[in-house]
Amino acid sequence: MPHHRLALCGKDFINWFERYTKRTLKEFRMFSHKDKILVAVSGGKDSLALWYLLCKLGYRADALHINLGIGEYSEKSLQKSRDLSLRLKAELFVVDLSKELAGIPELQEKTVREACSICGLVKRYNFNKFAREKGYSVVATGHNLDDETSSLLSNVLNWNLKYLGRKSPVLEEEKGFVKKVKPFCKFTEKETALYALLNGIDFIEEECPFSKDASTVFYKELLNRIEEKFPGTKLRFYLEYIRKILPKFNQTDTTDLKKCKICGEPSPTDVCSFCRLKEITVR
Amino acid sequence: MPHHRLALCGKDFINWFERYTKRTLKEFRMFSHKDKILVAVSGGKDSLALWYLLCKLGYRADALHINLGIGEYSEKSLQKSRDLSLRLKAELFVVDLSKELAGIPELQEKTVREACSICGLVKRYNFNKFAREKGYSVVATGHNLDDETSSLLSNVLNWNLKYLGRKSPVLEEEKGFVKKVKPFCKFTEKETALYALLNGIDFIEEECPFSKDASTVFYKELLNRIEEKFPGTKLRFYLEYIRKILPKFNQTDTTDLKKCKICGEPSPTDVCSFCRLKEITVR
Repeated sequence: MPHHRLALCGKDFINWFERYTKRTLKEFRMFSHKDKILVAVSGGKDSLALWYLLCKLGYRADALHINLGIGEYSEKSLQKSRDLSLRLKAELFVVDLSKELAGIPELQEKTVREACSICGLVKRYNFNKFAREKGYSVVATGHNLDDETSSLLSNVLNWNLKYLGRKSPVLEEEKGFVKKVKPFCKFTEKETALYALLNGIDFIEEECPFSKDASTVFYKELLNRIEEKFPGTKLRFYLEYIRKILPKFNQTDTTDLKKCKICGEPSPTDVCSFCRLKEITVR
Repeated sequence: MPHHRLALCGKDFINWFERYTKRTLKEFRMFSHKDKILVAVSGGKDSLALWYLLCKLGYRADALHINLGIGEYSEKSLQKSRDLSLRLKAELFVVDLSKELAGIPELQEKTVREACSICGLVKRYNFNKFAREKGYSVVATGHNLDDETSSLLSNVLNWNLKYLGRKSPVLEEEKGFVKKVKPFCKFTEKETALYALLNGIDFIEEECPFSKDASTVFYKELLNRIEEKFPGTKLRFYLEYIRKILPKFNQTDTTDLKKCKICGEPSPTDVCSFCRLKEITVR
């Protein structure tokens, strides 16, 4: 790991990974052992590794999986999540999007939004609603350094202040939104994958079939080229942003937040995006 | 030009290029016909096209060329600058670095600084000193959109606030520093090259032999890949930065500026970087 000037054996890597996670939890005051944590679990390496590690560290961590209805990909994802649930003896909740609304492939056909955008909306809405209704104090997601830097780069290239102001490893609870944290934000995806492999966590290795042309994949590739030439750039780009720049962009203005007329969830508009998606689908 | 949603013939392109330059001059209040302008001329497409256009628009624009002493590359660069001077009947001044100090190849061997860094230092120092001493009110450089976005990207990846705060198409006069402007900041290098070609301006086509491994070249390549995928990104990245972000980063604090003990030029340290370079070279 040239960006950390470290080269470790498997056992030391696991130790290092766990100590580093604890430091991140502490640095950003993510949660304590008193919190009830809901881990957003997709069946991929990051979220399963996160769930595993939080349970190992003794946190009260249940998981929610959203079945997106993307054929075999979704079936496998659910299975991997179930397998880990059994191993951890921890509770896994499942929301079935096909039953609640419609699967991603169907939703994509009915709207102009791209699949990744619908998927993000569906996840944000359901994780938050479920967590608040069931009394979880924190939603933890498995976003890694590659996820965070690729979206940071994309938002910087467009200077999207709305998104930049919320690009943080911690979003505090506010007006119907449960606290959100990203404990793996400093790990590259290679590091989370390695941690999962070394701990025998069986995760879904295929990428989502809709992500092939996603701009995040494109930006990840570019950042990997930059990292190769200038090791340490990703971590510096992200951490310096959080420490030096985010405070300049921080938008804590939530005065415009209303409650959705239909579902009552927090929304900047009269009817929230999820209910608008629902309306289109029902038609 | 997909980023402008335009496709023009040669004549229309020239008209468009000139109108667009006038708009940029006005938008950023670069200079008026009363100003005495010193164009920093390297012999490349950008600076020669800029000098040509400013003369065509009736501005009082002389040029300064710094002979960097990089063998045949420097000889050719000087010759191209001389050729245009004759054609424009405008004055070209030449500073010979080899006589004043030493050529870039020699300087590079004697210091730990990279060639591009030494070259930048030498140019900034000499253009400013020459302009102020000879009574020029503005120094105009040929930096194009590719130059500006590649350095912006590099500075953003490192969140270098010192440089980011000065990444502007106009730096006002202050404490011994002459006003600096970049009238071509919105043109891609393809556009400035085309304008030069269409006007029969003979410029040096080779890249500087020291620039092969330069990180700016690397970032330009990356930005070209992004631009290909998302046309308009470069221009938006730059202009949105100038309009929305730069005011947040702007550092007008020049209280620390002193006069160099040796040469009297403005400097943040007791002895300026140029004089320190000189000291090393004399040893």
